[in-house]
Amino acid sequence: MTAVAALLQRSGRRILLATFAVAAIGSLLVPEPFAFGQTSADESSPIFGVKIPAGYRQWELIAPSREAGSFDELRSILGNAISMKAYRDSALPFPDGSILVKLAWKQVPSAEFAEAFVPGHTTTVQVMVKDSKKYPSTGGWGFGRFIDGKPVDETQHQTCFACHEANVKEHDFVFTRYAP
Amino acid sequence: MTAVAALLQRSGRRILLATFAVAAIGSLLVPEPFAFGQTSADESSPIFGVKIPAGYRQWELIAPSREAGSFDELRSILGNAISMKAYRDSALPFPDGSILVKLAWKQVPSAEFAEAFVPGHTTTVQVMVKDSKKYPSTGGWGFGRFIDGKPVDETQHQTCFACHEANVKEHDFVFTRYAP
Repeated sequence: MTAVAALLQRSGRRILLATFAVAAIGSLLVPEPFAFGQTSADESSPIFGVKIPAGYRQWELIAPSREAGSFDELRSILGNAISMKAYRDSALPFPDGSILVKLAWKQVPSAEFAEAFVPGHTTTVQVMVKDSKKYPSTGGWGFGRFIDGKPVDETQHQTCFACHEANVKEHDFVFTRYAP
Repeated sequence: MTAVAALLQRSGRRILLATFAVAAIGSLLVPEPFAFGQTSADESSPIFGVKIPAGYRQWELIAPSREAGSFDELRSILGNAISMKAYRDSALPFPDGSILVKLAWKQVPSAEFAEAFVPGHTTTVQVMVKDSKKYPSTGGWGFGRFIDGKPVDETQHQTCFACHEANVKEHDFVFTRYAP
């Protein structure tokens, strides 16, 4: 074996090892199955540092809702496995690790069925993350409000907890009930 | 060993075998994880023989919708894994094995937030099952409409396909589009 051939062989092994290492790390970094049609967001919310969680669009439905008035939106609230277990067990407060995501769309009349309304363009994605150590002053919840995957400003995030505290303190600061 | 002891030993083996057999069959008969808050239905729909599928309440959300007028309902349409893959791939027609379930609730004003509407009592659960061999005359779809877990009558089931055919034939007879 020439010196060049030996060098190539060693390099080859290194490349192969590096390839395996990258693949192995990559597989660890993908916590959820492929999620289509959802905005990924690396940016976190002001005040709370909450991000849009990976794979949330595949989460289980807690309930739909509608916001009339100027919002004029259809909404769906999804929960991760930890939060769904709490709903199942009717166990409040929600345990740390619970995450709720509210998706919102402008409601538009269906072109195919009279009196039906369907989702139009997406408006906001809103996230609540339970971490009682990280968010002791806001009921254990961190909040994130996103438009097109970007968090809205700090002023808007200052309003989240006040409203939840004023209206649903007795339900661990969560509006949404499970719709059977 | 006495004759009685031998008999008992043989009986014991049979009981043990029978126990294992029952347990093994039982495990095969449980196709989905525990589903809470959903009506189970053994009865199938007239004309189509469609049942409420086990575990549907844990399925992925396709989209919410609202029905105004006399229905005055909030709705959520969920899909099994086969149908969700078709939505992901934008692959029409839906393959055999696709199942869509539409949940419906009366919409009621939220007691906790002005201008918000939330699910009230459940009204209907409506199911579409794709089986092109079983349902060749209705676009490959079987239909089931259930109230409190019981299928509605044959007359109501005669209206399903006509309406889907008239309005959404070009979308494989399915109204609901995926809401990202």
